Amino acid sequence: MAEKVSGGSKGKPIRCRGAVCRRPSEPLVIEEIIVAPPMPHEVRIRIIYTSLCHSDLLFWKIKDFAAAMFPRILGHEAIGVVESVGEDVNEVSEGDTVIPTFMADCGECGDCKSPKSNLCSKLPFKSSHFMPRYETSRFTDLNGEAIYHFLYVSSFSEYTVVDIAHVTKIDSGIPLTKAAGLLGCGVSTGVGAAWRTANVEPGSTVAIFGLGSIGLAVAEGARLCGATRIIGVDVNEDKFEVGKKFGLTDFVKAANSENKSASEVIIEMTDGGADYCFECVGMASVVQEAYACCRKGWGKTIVLGVDKPGSQVTISSRDILTTGKSLIGVLFGGLKPKSDIPTLLNRYINKELQLDEFVTHEVPFEDINKAFDLLIEGKCLRCVICMNDQ
Amino acid sequence: MAEKVSGGSKGKPIRCRGAVCRRPSEPLVIEEIIVAPPMPHEVRIRIIYTSLCHSDLLFWKIKDFAAAMFPRILGHEAIGVVESVGEDVNEVSEGDTVIPTFMADCGECGDCKSPKSNLCSKLPFKSSHFMPRYETSRFTDLNGEAIYHFLYVSSFSEYTVVDIAHVTKIDSGIPLTKAAGLLGCGVSTGVGAAWRTANVEPGSTVAIFGLGSIGLAVAEGARLCGATRIIGVDVNEDKFEVGKKFGLTDFVKAANSENKSASEVIIEMTDGGADYCFECVGMASVVQEAYACCRKGWGKTIVLGVDKPGSQVTISSRDILTTGKSLIGVLFGGLKPKSDIPTLLNRYINKELQLDEFVTHEVPFEDINKAFDLLIEGKCLRCVICMNDQ
Repeated sequence: MAEKVSGGSKGKPIRCRGAVCRRPSEPLVIEEIIVAPPMPHEVRIRIIYTSLCHSDLLFWKIKDFAAAMFPRILGHEAIGVVESVGEDVNEVSEGDTVIPTFMADCGECGDCKSPKSNLCSKLPFKSSHFMPRYETSRFTDLNGEAIYHFLYVSSFSEYTVVDIAHVTKIDSGIPLTKAAGLLGCGVSTGVGAAWRTANVEPGSTVAIFGLGSIGLAVAEGARLCGATRIIGVDVNEDKFEVGKKFGLTDFVKAANSENKSASEVIIEMTDGGADYCFECVGMASVVQEAYACCRKGWGKTIVLGVDKPGSQVTISSRDILTTGKSLIGVLFGGLKPKSDIPTLLNRYINKELQLDEFVTHEVPFEDINKAFDLLIEGKCLRCVICMNDQ
Repeated sequence: MAEKVSGGSKGKPIRCRGAVCRRPSEPLVIEEIIVAPPMPHEVRIRIIYTSLCHSDLLFWKIKDFAAAMFPRILGHEAIGVVESVGEDVNEVSEGDTVIPTFMADCGECGDCKSPKSNLCSKLPFKSSHFMPRYETSRFTDLNGEAIYHFLYVSSFSEYTVVDIAHVTKIDSGIPLTKAAGLLGCGVSTGVGAAWRTANVEPGSTVAIFGLGSIGLAVAEGARLCGATRIIGVDVNEDKFEVGKKFGLTDFVKAANSENKSASEVIIEMTDGGADYCFECVGMASVVQEAYACCRKGWGKTIVLGVDKPGSQVTISSRDILTTGKSLIGVLFGGLKPKSDIPTLLNRYINKELQLDEFVTHEVPFEDINKAFDLLIEGKCLRCVICMNDQ
């Protein structure tokens, strides 16, 4: 059991439970760890709910890459409460509800000040294993060995430390629900890609490759933007039934029986291609498929999927030149966490944005490995992991 | 000598001189040809001035490709006067000044009606050797052999036949200058790419790869849009002096002596990359360079250069996903010929847009092969070929 922490923990290490990934592809080990107090500009957060995203799975499995660093605490989609803050943190204080994000939003650099970028240049996104400002870890195991961070969040722990640039404060009047943490990554990424990056126009046609949570969140974003036709593409036909709840109007089975590619089917059914194509799988070949079936003249292909390190997208020079299409990549849907997460949360509270519908499963922290099994088996959209006493 | 044609030629074949490309990479042969009267929806044009563009050169040299069809009449940048019109042509009449374009603008299809596209879907751009509506030729040699068309224009002839969708009428009050024909391809492509496609913002930084006419026209467009820093990249340092006249502020020598790539130099000198990068060379590797040095977060790479058939652009999946950059291809700068050429022509008449400055050489029709030599030697921007009696 983790030691219970009350007001007296500020400035001291906390001993609590973390789900440690000790070796790639092996079940996480729930063990007692030590979480150091936050350094200046950092916040120590008690995680309330966290959920499992495909990027956790990807980095859980990676072996032969510089990014594969173990032991590590995964998890980057969560909601929690501030336990204590380090020096120079004025934006949040003890007891505030917060959503940590893998994207920084320092508010000071040229990117954060520009309406055109969400890629903070003061604390740029990279494959780091440490806190962004100090390149050190706040986690150690009981043998004193450092445990690596993941995506600046590491939410598979009862407590974590996150840089204030990676923390979005949630208004105190907003209830802390199981689904709200999904705005920390997957749902924001999908909704933002349709809303901010593609700027989907009312009446348009959208094709979504990959109907996991991110793909369905794109559908949700496209629906909110007024798209009239939302085509889902997946190898798994069961996803269509789920997808209808998020506004999908059509379904194309990838690798279908008629030996036609999904892009050929979409070009036929839309009489020329979709206005916007979203790649939510993370495969270069799917990016190429999506690009192939976006509408000449104005089609946009938006890449959201996280591919294996080293993969390459290849497009014919002639197609680039002669089709007038755009290819755009985007992290976190192009959203700025500190201003856009509260906007989406309000739309959720106002029942415009569906969020609870993404939570298909929940498990207690002890059963976190079940969340991995469910996601691997394709049986869930989001499995929320409920920390102690929730 | 060509037979002189007066009012009586309507409806009859015209015998005149054409510069025929009989074999790839061999000098054009000026010979007498027969130009059939226009079919319905077609216009027969007396060419007054034409100029040589790199795409003419590219297709003049191509041997091992389906697009290499000979004998052929090249040329696609010109200005002329309507000699006669076929049935169902109401938009222009005999004596009108016109600029033919390789891009169609039918005004009726979904693309022509949309403000977002300039890729006519009724008469789509393709590597055709014929008139677009009938897939037949209007040229024959004196042995009765058909001569192929090029890019729906074939302006290296005293007379040519062009589909009305490919013809832009010029206001009768506008003088017919040597430079005006440049709006039929190169200058429009470059200016349009900066103006319509990139929508260059005032105060921004632009990098232009390749300082031929199209690259310098991009500079001219960027200057008109208010860009404050316009960086030119070329292997030939002499281009910088020329470029200054078109607003270039900086020059980077491609393959420079310090073993740094142009993209590395540009990232350093702009502290992160250019807001807009334009590829005007037509090489996949240069597209990759341009993409590499456009600013993360909002950078746009616009591809204008015509590469060899079959070439491929390769970009890392990780770069696409994590940089927030856009890659956009564009034909004719994203301009709609019939509405945008008159706009640019007015800006030229009002002395806002430089056009005469692109005309560095002129030769009589008889010396058309000199224009090829000059362009190959990199000695000219545009060489205008003056037809008889001009």
